[in-house]
Amino acid sequence: MRYLPGEPQNLPGNRDALSRYQARHFRFDVKEGVATLTLNRPERKNPLTFDSYAELRDLFRNLTYAEDVKAVVIVGAGDNFCSGGDVHDIIGPLTKLDMPGLLAFTRMTGDLVKAMRACPQPVIAAIDGICAGAGALLALASDIRFGTERSKTAFLFTRVGLAGCDMGACALLPRVIGQGRASELLYTGRSMGGEEAERWGFFNRLCIPEAMLTDAQVFAYELAHGPTFAHGMTKKMMQQEWNMGVDEAIEAEAQAQAICMATNDFHRAYHAFVAKKKPVFEGD
Amino acid sequence: MRYLPGEPQNLPGNRDALSRYQARHFRFDVKEGVATLTLNRPERKNPLTFDSYAELRDLFRNLTYAEDVKAVVIVGAGDNFCSGGDVHDIIGPLTKLDMPGLLAFTRMTGDLVKAMRACPQPVIAAIDGICAGAGALLALASDIRFGTERSKTAFLFTRVGLAGCDMGACALLPRVIGQGRASELLYTGRSMGGEEAERWGFFNRLCIPEAMLTDAQVFAYELAHGPTFAHGMTKKMMQQEWNMGVDEAIEAEAQAQAICMATNDFHRAYHAFVAKKKPVFEGD
Amino acid sequence: MRYLPGEPQNLPGNRDALSRYQARHFRFDVKEGVATLTLNRPERKNPLTFDSYAELRDLFRNLTYAEDVKAVVIVGAGDNFCSGGDVHDIIGPLTKLDMPGLLAFTRMTGDLVKAMRACPQPVIAAIDGICAGAGALLALASDIRFGTERSKTAFLFTRVGLAGCDMGACALLPRVIGQGRASELLYTGRSMGGEEAERWGFFNRLCIPEAMLTDAQVFAYELAHGPTFAHGMTKKMMQQEWNMGVDEAIEAEAQAQAICMATNDFHRAYHAFVAKKKPVFEGD
Repeated sequence: MRYLPGEPQNLPGNRDALSRYQARHFRFDVKEGVATLTLNRPERKNPLTFDSYAELRDLFRNLTYAEDVKAVVIVGAGDNFCSGGDVHDIIGPLTKLDMPGLLAFTRMTGDLVKAMRACPQPVIAAIDGICAGAGALLALASDIRFGTERSKTAFLFTRVGLAGCDMGACALLPRVIGQGRASELLYTGRSMGGEEAERWGFFNRLCIPEAMLTDAQVFAYELAHGPTFAHGMTKKMMQQEWNMGVDEAIEAEAQAQAICMATNDFHRAYHAFVAKKKPVFEGD
Repeated sequence: MRYLPGEPQNLPGNRDALSRYQARHFRFDVKEGVATLTLNRPERKNPLTFDSYAELRDLFRNLTYAEDVKAVVIVGAGDNFCSGGDVHDIIGPLTKLDMPGLLAFTRMTGDLVKAMRACPQPVIAAIDGICAGAGALLALASDIRFGTERSKTAFLFTRVGLAGCDMGACALLPRVIGQGRASELLYTGRSMGGEEAERWGFFNRLCIPEAMLTDAQVFAYELAHGPTFAHGMTKKMMQQEWNMGVDEAIEAEAQAQAICMATNDFHRAYHAFVAKKKPVFEGD
Repeated sequence: MRYLPGEPQNLPGNRDALSRYQARHFRFDVKEGVATLTLNRPERKNPLTFDSYAELRDLFRNLTYAEDVKAVVIVGAGDNFCSGGDVHDIIGPLTKLDMPGLLAFTRMTGDLVKAMRACPQPVIAAIDGICAGAGALLALASDIRFGTERSKTAFLFTRVGLAGCDMGACALLPRVIGQGRASELLYTGRSMGGEEAERWGFFNRLCIPEAMLTDAQVFAYELAHGPTFAHGMTKKMMQQEWNMGVDEAIEAEAQAQAICMATNDFHRAYHAFVAKKKPVFEGD
């Protein structure tokens, strides 16, 4: 048996139509530049399936070209974020795949993370309840993470006999919480609690569950109404400079920031400052 | 005078005999897959010597091929971890070496860290009391660190007129506790206390002194009875991805995890889950 | 209009004359091997100008050759560190530059950070009050940061329509406080408070405002009277190993430490130890 990656979704190719995108395997709503992506099988704690993986990958790839989305919030329906790859829908079938099929699958899940890191929009994960396996990776691949005290984030690949190196975890997690703490979570698969996650820098903020989605959307709204071209450059450069030397990174930033100084938003900010007004950014 | 690296220890070359290895310069016991390596000159706070460095290096190199050891605990006898290179046995002789001799020494100590990072077994350091100089590097080169409140970890090379760049400290320490904190410890050589070490992510856990070794051995036992092939892959990939770009790391993980999905342990976990049992991993 | 980088300052080229350097755009005093650099326009919260940027760059470049300065403290006059690039003196003119002029400017500011990272002296930033924009980068490019509870550090480029990638921020900040926290500060431009900065590892120590400069100078004095050749090697190797693999970093340290073992300071430390005295280091 061989896994064949999901068919590319028929996403709109033009630049301003993601607002109208009808998602098939999750909810997707766009309001004032902020897309809210809701994993939506709450009765199963929002697991991922082959199809939802593929649709997520394609959606994030298309976000690169979407001009009507300036920030993304990912959340889970009910009181959980995401339980990861479904045991019956994913792990069972995986045990029957040949090696090319296995690699096609791990590359597809990795491509989702690549797409999340490559799109210019900041991605804010809003995490309550269970955040496990590939769900923990969705959180980790986001730019900003809001969480709740009761949330439980677990890189639990080891519990199903796998390694911690899944979808980039061994590269990303040590840079967020440090090499020693990442080692423990990846070797043991144990849950990281909400307070611990905030203390270690995994969560940017602890929220009360009822307010978390609104908090994340407000945060996203602020970014979406800031200098979004510049935000995209910030995101791009954090990715680009990941393994550059310091001097090379400084030259790369000299070029990137010179580009931003040629934007209208930079001029708008200066003129607003001189006029003692709040700047209105337009992302160009 | 020239330092000649210690003769290679006559370690068993076959795959299952490290359990019976008779260490000469420390204690080494293997029980149910967990090796406990005890630095054992408590009256001097367990310093390292030319001979113990060389034996440690050879032992960790052989661990790559040992199938009867699945996790390693390093601890010091008495109430101290390790006081580092002995002033009389190491520093004195070093002052008499020529440059090739000095380099032969620094390469040997570096080779010990390389071997600790290259072997597939997770290494857990259990740190009480003094943890200084090369001793602090033994701790840093481990995957997991348990410590006590009263422990004192010092990268004190500067105190003997040397640089903080010893055995990989300038690469490893910033990734564990952050660049700013690492800079302070490496420039000043000051002790990091136990609470500070936990707060900064150097220690994974603070233990009470009497229970620390047992805590570390229990932790090691759990790992040793998990999917050890996958654990070795987790360790390998954290090393491999150290200076890869994000996209390259994701592809590397896609390949590594696909390999793990072809192991029996992955299948065992799935079948145990379906049967509502706890999986029994065998490391293949 | 095109920005032309400031004329190189007429700094002394010989090795021991920085003590007598008369700074034009800030204060610069050297006492017992410790240089104190004071940004000195307190009525404007010590902003940077084209001229002060250029003079700072040239000064740090010359520090590489200065034998009479062994550590540097940077501080702001009054109760603030530095408000960054002046809106009227810098941002206004930047809005009139062509692309080569913009790049000449961003490269000059980047060259200041490169020079701070390349000079062998540890740089200690003493941060009270406002520490914003390029001022936050001066702090970030330092080796050690002391701060006050009331200080406010903000990477506020986004507030003027620019990206967070300025002078190396996207490379340096994640390695100091972690990728998640750095993302938040760089996307939002919000202030990081003093306690938060200490908790996240940005500040090495919180000081009371009245004592901070003295604390920083005492710290610098200690380093300046330590093995300064070795300190320079520690700084160099943290820079060199930034994007090396672990094994390559260990070999690089083997070479660097072997060099340090051939210094007189190493021998002095050993002989002092044997004689039960405190070593007196001379930096050679």
